[in-house]
Amino acid sequence: MPNTRKLILKPLAIDTYHEHIAYLHRQCPLYQSEEFRSLFKVQISNNGDSILATLNIIEGDELLNPNEIGLSIPAFRAFSQNAGCEVQLSPPQPVHSMQAVRAKINGQTLDKTDFMQICQDIIHKRYSNAEIAAFLVACTESGLDRNEVFYLTEAMIETGKRFEWDHAIVVDKHCIGGIPGNRTTMIVTPIIAAHGMLMPKTSSRAITSPAGTADTMETLAEVQLSFEKLQKIVQQTNACLAWGGTAQLAPVDDLLISVERPLKLDSVGQMVASILSKKVAAGSTHLLIDIPVGDTAKVRSMQDAIKLRKLFEFVGDQLKLNLEVMITDGKQPIGRGIGPTLEARDVLQVLNNDPNAPHDLKEKSLELAGRILEFDPDIRGGQGYHLARDILESGRAMTKMQQIIELQGAKTLDLQPAKYSLDITAPQSGRIEAIDNLHIAHLAHIAGAPFDKKAGIDLRQKVGQLVSSGDLLYRIYCERQANQQFVKDLIHHQGIGYQLSEHSL
Amino acid sequence: MPNTRKLILKPLAIDTYHEHIAYLHRQCPLYQSEEFRSLFKVQISNNGDSILATLNIIEGDELLNPNEIGLSIPAFRAFSQNAGCEVQLSPPQPVHSMQAVRAKINGQTLDKTDFMQICQDIIHKRYSNAEIAAFLVACTESGLDRNEVFYLTEAMIETGKRFEWDHAIVVDKHCIGGIPGNRTTMIVTPIIAAHGMLMPKTSSRAITSPAGTADTMETLAEVQLSFEKLQKIVQQTNACLAWGGTAQLAPVDDLLISVERPLKLDSVGQMVASILSKKVAAGSTHLLIDIPVGDTAKVRSMQDAIKLRKLFEFVGDQLKLNLEVMITDGKQPIGRGIGPTLEARDVLQVLNNDPNAPHDLKEKSLELAGRILEFDPDIRGGQGYHLARDILESGRAMTKMQQIIELQGAKTLDLQPAKYSLDITAPQSGRIEAIDNLHIAHLAHIAGAPFDKKAGIDLRQKVGQLVSSGDLLYRIYCERQANQQFVKDLIHHQGIGYQLSEHSL
Repeated sequence: MPNTRKLILKPLAIDTYHEHIAYLHRQCPLYQSEEFRSLFKVQISNNGDSILATLNIIEGDELLNPNEIGLSIPAFRAFSQNAGCEVQLSPPQPVHSMQAVRAKINGQTLDKTDFMQICQDIIHKRYSNAEIAAFLVACTESGLDRNEVFYLTEAMIETGKRFEWDHAIVVDKHCIGGIPGNRTTMIVTPIIAAHGMLMPKTSSRAITSPAGTADTMETLAEVQLSFEKLQKIVQQTNACLAWGGTAQLAPVDDLLISVERPLKLDSVGQMVASILSKKVAAGSTHLLIDIPVGDTAKVRSMQDAIKLRKLFEFVGDQLKLNLEVMITDGKQPIGRGIGPTLEARDVLQVLNNDPNAPHDLKEKSLELAGRILEFDPDIRGGQGYHLARDILESGRAMTKMQQIIELQGAKTLDLQPAKYSLDITAPQSGRIEAIDNLHIAHLAHIAGAPFDKKAGIDLRQKVGQLVSSGDLLYRIYCERQANQQFVKDLIHHQGIGYQLSEHSL
Repeated sequence: MPNTRKLILKPLAIDTYHEHIAYLHRQCPLYQSEEFRSLFKVQISNNGDSILATLNIIEGDELLNPNEIGLSIPAFRAFSQNAGCEVQLSPPQPVHSMQAVRAKINGQTLDKTDFMQICQDIIHKRYSNAEIAAFLVACTESGLDRNEVFYLTEAMIETGKRFEWDHAIVVDKHCIGGIPGNRTTMIVTPIIAAHGMLMPKTSSRAITSPAGTADTMETLAEVQLSFEKLQKIVQQTNACLAWGGTAQLAPVDDLLISVERPLKLDSVGQMVASILSKKVAAGSTHLLIDIPVGDTAKVRSMQDAIKLRKLFEFVGDQLKLNLEVMITDGKQPIGRGIGPTLEARDVLQVLNNDPNAPHDLKEKSLELAGRILEFDPDIRGGQGYHLARDILESGRAMTKMQQIIELQGAKTLDLQPAKYSLDITAPQSGRIEAIDNLHIAHLAHIAGAPFDKKAGIDLRQKVGQLVSSGDLLYRIYCERQANQQFVKDLIHHQGIGYQLSEHSL
């Protein structure tokens, strides 16, 4: 009885993000049949086009008539049929790649084809969020072997767009994160570009950390650029410092992260696949990975860092990516400012060769830039650092940065921090033994960063320094008094994040 | 700035099943702040009430104004605040029990408190479907140890309603499934009730199998009964044969299954917790579990069956449930009919002592009933089977069944199968060596069962019988020609599901 399965298509202006939702009227004759009532997903077809969608049921006639089927914004967009046309409803075809997911759950190893089919089904929105979560947990729990990480990376690259650049060497850097204030990218990129190498840098915004490179750069310039504009800027300056969210590079990765992030899952294999797929899709040929190690960093021990390095190297080699890994000191935040405006201030101090510029941020940036410069076959091994220092100290890096800022769209420079400030002082005299990255990041986040750009923390003392009781350790800036109260409560319950030696000076 | 966070509450008539969805206008000033834009869930509060909901965004003014917040039907119901009141929106408090889920994902063992908190958060809809999926996969993959299964069972019981009965012994039976036609419950229950024992039987409907007990009983009587009506029927007849879906027993289990079923996950620990929590919540004191073993059954080997038996016994003992397990022959379907109407016909033949009644269905029912009768301390060990046979053959079981049918609400008896029939004959002469439970169930499902009650399969030959080429093996009934075509295609591609010995007669 095919005719009874026809419904009129109606777009509903509901944004269900990545999930396709179809809406049926409670009195829809089709929904009345038990066959559909027990379904969670339906297949909607017309003229050879077909999508899968999760069912929601509408009561009353406000939104839909019983002979209509509503589609949420992303579902309607994906279906590419006109409003008002007749569509056919049927039980969904099984999503075959879910068999591979179930095999993974049972501890089996998947092959190249499995990962490709999983990524294709995800990109065509054939997975519900629950199915994506099942895939992610399976990858977390039994883990992915290194071939599986490679297959997943490749599948994520092949199911998205790829940038092509007109240069033999296209470089990029990536820090695996967890260190507040670690804004080296905004110093490294202009140094590399000033040397004449191509570094089309796209970065993420912070979600749970107090600032991402895109958030910090956004205090100085526009970062949300069309691909065409971005390409033009790179052609003119060798670089850009843009937000990567609009580029549709390895889009499966975005879908995985949108489910993974609220679950707070942590899968090493998926992290490596995520990073490398984005870089290869962005057209990079050479990549430097920064792995900070410390008690409160993402990677806690040298052993873990080396294991991670080897995984990066293996997958990088398979992808024919020229990849190097630097294991760096992650025992405390880098620089002084934490939060977009305060970090931008630090970056500009370094680029301006300000004598007050934070030394650790400058040194780390020069080391990273030096390693990247040595990707250039004309640079003698070991000379990268000195060349980077020369480019920075001669002012050429700052000139390049100004060029990038202007082309992306400069903003009025305003480095004034947020209006409410709170001083945290040393509770005793002693030597600073440790600074808790996680706690300091959390405090800055609660203070309002990155949503309030001027909110954050300004560190005045770092590990190794001797302080007297009452000395200022750091200052917290908030835009709103409520946030300041949250910060006070958090410090009251969980401390100030600084560990001082017991003996007095 | 608390005032800017106030929105007007508006119920939206959208049934999002178990998930709470909140709808914001794209132009809502709150959504404009990046703080909310990056969120997937929000917390909505007023007068001390508070719920968590997943965000969907509405474009245009048709449904919502920018100063309103919409709630889907289940969310509005759970929030228990009036339409039009002012509510406060805030970022969600973290759901603490997700830490335990993440620990489980990492292979750790959880304790009683963990499972209780997880179940409480699930029952209060603080988990998204993706979070429930993560929990389920974690339970599947690293598995649950037997204490964990007990804790989960207990937590599922304690987060729902519990029935109380006025009898020292309340019995139940459960088959772990996978065997088509295995409709013993409808024979066992009237035998037990006729003996005077209490057996308030609630059953499920089929989802992927061709019939559940509720579907089959529904061809004879109403099965969707209020708890009050059900209680009254049990008081009058000692039994009922109702659908269990309305009772709110161990509701966490329903939520888990609603996510698990589309994922087709299979977790032994969760299955045991699911079965036992429902039975204890229904007030059972004595329970018989039937585990059929066969190459195409759910449990494939005696070793697996014994492992499963021990898990049932362990958790049953912890729950102070008097539990027995029978491991039965699952090498082929039980009875002849597969599908609601055809199975009801078999059941009535057995209850009516029809000489043509399927022998295997009768014998298995008597064995199960005999074991349950022996839960009665007055029955001598080993006498249960004979007593059961006596109750059946004297017609007392049928009288009891008629009483139950009448009180639940009898339907006009119509055992005529569906109109289109298709005969499947032996392709060669030989002995029937095996019948594939899974394939036969799949064929009956494709034929239309259980949605078309009269659709299904009627088996004419069982394992061990000798057939000549062209003899009728089984007949398939469909209500619609389209389904008949699907069945033909399936047989063409995957065979008839019967294995015949090579040598001719």
